[in-house]
Amino acid sequence: MPSLKPLAQAAKHAARTLANASTAQKDDALRAMAKELRAASAAICEANTADVAAAKAAGKNEAFLDRLTLDGPRVEAMAKAVEAVCGLADPVGEVTERWTRPNGLVVRKVRLPLGVVLMIYESRPNVTSDAAALCLKSGNAAILRGGSESFASNHALAKALARGVESVGLPAEVVQLVPSTDRASLLELLTFEGLIDLCIPRGGEGLIRFVVENARVPVVKHYQGVCHVYVHAAADLAMAERLIVNAKASRPGVCNAAECLLVDRAVASKFLPAAGRALVAKRVELRGDEETVRLLQAADVPVKAAQPEDWGKEFLDLILAVKVVEGLDDALAHIARYGSEHTEAIATKDPAAAQRFTREVCASAVMVNASTRFNDGGELGLGAEVGISTSRLHAFGPMGLKELTSQKYVVEGDGQVR
Amino acid sequence: MPSLKPLAQAAKHAARTLANASTAQKDDALRAMAKELRAASAAICEANTADVAAAKAAGKNEAFLDRLTLDGPRVEAMAKAVEAVCGLADPVGEVTERWTRPNGLVVRKVRLPLGVVLMIYESRPNVTSDAAALCLKSGNAAILRGGSESFASNHALAKALARGVESVGLPAEVVQLVPSTDRASLLELLTFEGLIDLCIPRGGEGLIRFVVENARVPVVKHYQGVCHVYVHAAADLAMAERLIVNAKASRPGVCNAAECLLVDRAVASKFLPAAGRALVAKRVELRGDEETVRLLQAADVPVKAAQPEDWGKEFLDLILAVKVVEGLDDALAHIARYGSEHTEAIATKDPAAAQRFTREVCASAVMVNASTRFNDGGELGLGAEVGISTSRLHAFGPMGLKELTSQKYVVEGDGQVR
Repeated sequence: MPSLKPLAQAAKHAARTLANASTAQKDDALRAMAKELRAASAAICEANTADVAAAKAAGKNEAFLDRLTLDGPRVEAMAKAVEAVCGLADPVGEVTERWTRPNGLVVRKVRLPLGVVLMIYESRPNVTSDAAALCLKSGNAAILRGGSESFASNHALAKALARGVESVGLPAEVVQLVPSTDRASLLELLTFEGLIDLCIPRGGEGLIRFVVENARVPVVKHYQGVCHVYVHAAADLAMAERLIVNAKASRPGVCNAAECLLVDRAVASKFLPAAGRALVAKRVELRGDEETVRLLQAADVPVKAAQPEDWGKEFLDLILAVKVVEGLDDALAHIARYGSEHTEAIATKDPAAAQRFTREVCASAVMVNASTRFNDGGELGLGAEVGISTSRLHAFGPMGLKELTSQKYVVEGDGQVR
Repeated sequence: MPSLKPLAQAAKHAARTLANASTAQKDDALRAMAKELRAASAAICEANTADVAAAKAAGKNEAFLDRLTLDGPRVEAMAKAVEAVCGLADPVGEVTERWTRPNGLVVRKVRLPLGVVLMIYESRPNVTSDAAALCLKSGNAAILRGGSESFASNHALAKALARGVESVGLPAEVVQLVPSTDRASLLELLTFEGLIDLCIPRGGEGLIRFVVENARVPVVKHYQGVCHVYVHAAADLAMAERLIVNAKASRPGVCNAAECLLVDRAVASKFLPAAGRALVAKRVELRGDEETVRLLQAADVPVKAAQPEDWGKEFLDLILAVKVVEGLDDALAHIARYGSEHTEAIATKDPAAAQRFTREVCASAVMVNASTRFNDGGELGLGAEVGISTSRLHAFGPMGLKELTSQKYVVEGDGQVR
């Protein structure tokens, strides 16, 4: 197996050029990338057909095949998403703070690209174009390491994207697909300290743990989204019902979906029967603690007894764990023990309870009277994201363009010495 | 060897309490820590005497022994430094950004502690109290892993600091010294993913590489400070001379000292003889490229021929590599190749040259007409620092209280769903 070092070195070299590209040139590149995606649509779909056929033959399920499949409209949507990045503000060169020292030194903090970003992902080919576009706009070279099941699709996509970059005079090596998808080559990439400035793994927990355990390069990631909705005694119960139904059922397979409902004992008998019925109407399976089971059974709402492993579990499915708690302290303790620091929500009309919850919960996003589903780069106004971090280091929450940059100090003086 | 996991778990647990402590309580703790340091001064100095005797017996050099040695005034200075952290603004809870989404959601970014910070350092006992104070004020539990040579001193210091913390009702486990200094226990600590949120190694490059290569926890560090001073053709040459003399000779053993002088050919014959004489007067050994040697020898200034390994070398001594360059492009290329992304300086009166230099140089601090020695938390106005990062991820440059925090999103709605 040939070493991937030349590929990483080429990325590093290309990143230096890209770091100094103007906003106009980067936007030109994004438009050219979108144009090349459209021009290559037929070739991309043909490559994808082969990927899908192989995945079918390997017995992959419908959800997997759907994530993998591309067609004309989906390629067009990818091109549009690349173009949309033109509309986002260029973070590079932004002065985020400025102050003057008593000795006259003027200190500014100025955003600069990270350098080379390694994206590791599984079967969704749209990550290829999304990540390439966000990395390009933030001045970073992207090394894309997709899953083996989408390799032919990713190859066709990356070729088109690189052609677009090259057509505006930027180095094609700012968008490179890793030509192998085995673990040995991934292991090699993870040792390229000094060449790769950030690694973002996305996918199943097994892949992410493999990356964290083997990386010598910095990694920002999240393992799981075990998100709770807590219905406080002073909640607007009708609103709380809408929130949990949305948080659980609107898209159960994503990381910001709720996995557990906590309800204050004071309102449990009033809230749970109605909310339970609404959830069951959305085909949600409820797994309750003893008190929940009692209340729901009394109201003829189907419910199973929760097993110990259901607390803190990321179901990624139409299943919800439900627990009656004794109040805010109990809810905070449950979340500290079982949450994944991803997204936590409280429903309450009591500002003091909301304040304590937002202050004491450690999670990348803490919601008050809003669905957990809003922890998303687009929804929070970041424009787009390359992933959501629960690492706390560097970025905590959705990672948009700013999170793909660092900041350096620029200090101007007139001859100051120490 | 007993596992260090209980120690790390105790730190994590204590960090949760500390995260919710008020600013007043944390400042009380800092004052109590200072008080306990003063009360234990004799015991600390006695422990230190044993460390120094052992280091002497082991044949350590004078500089090492000086860094290691404590006495009454040095302990008093450590206590004062701890108290000074009371005066720094508490970063926890700070709202750094706030905006409203079209659907009415109010989004804030709010600072929170990182959690548990592992400091790894060598022989300076003052790192024990400095790191403990900065971690405490930023709401983080500190695990302190000092060098074996200062173990007795660090043990006495950490005990006093923990007593101070406990005396104000905070858990003593927010300041813990690792009871072993061997590599095996360090290796174990570096695997505590999920318990340790950030590892900051300080010391020799060998130690830092060992940490980076073995850590599964996030690491922020710098290996070296290979800092350049570039004298541009349009520099004020008298000012440039003051800058390089200060950058090289004021404290040659530190990471923000200059290691290499680059001089534009257009001013080399005018600048180098005078600057060379000023440097030699400060006992600096000059190692020049061919042109530098020619110019200095013609002016009777002592100079050696630089060897290839002198470019990009961190001398940490009164030695300076000197090179004549062809202009800004050549200087930028030299810095990109040999710099360590720590601190780079330009001397110039030309704003366009300064702008290109500050834009294109990738370093944690870029100085214009100022000494490289200003890349320091105190000098830049951060108050104090736990180290300087050249990692770009999370923090780039001096790490003060803000750099010991993360930011979470707090989102307030009135029932919004997706």
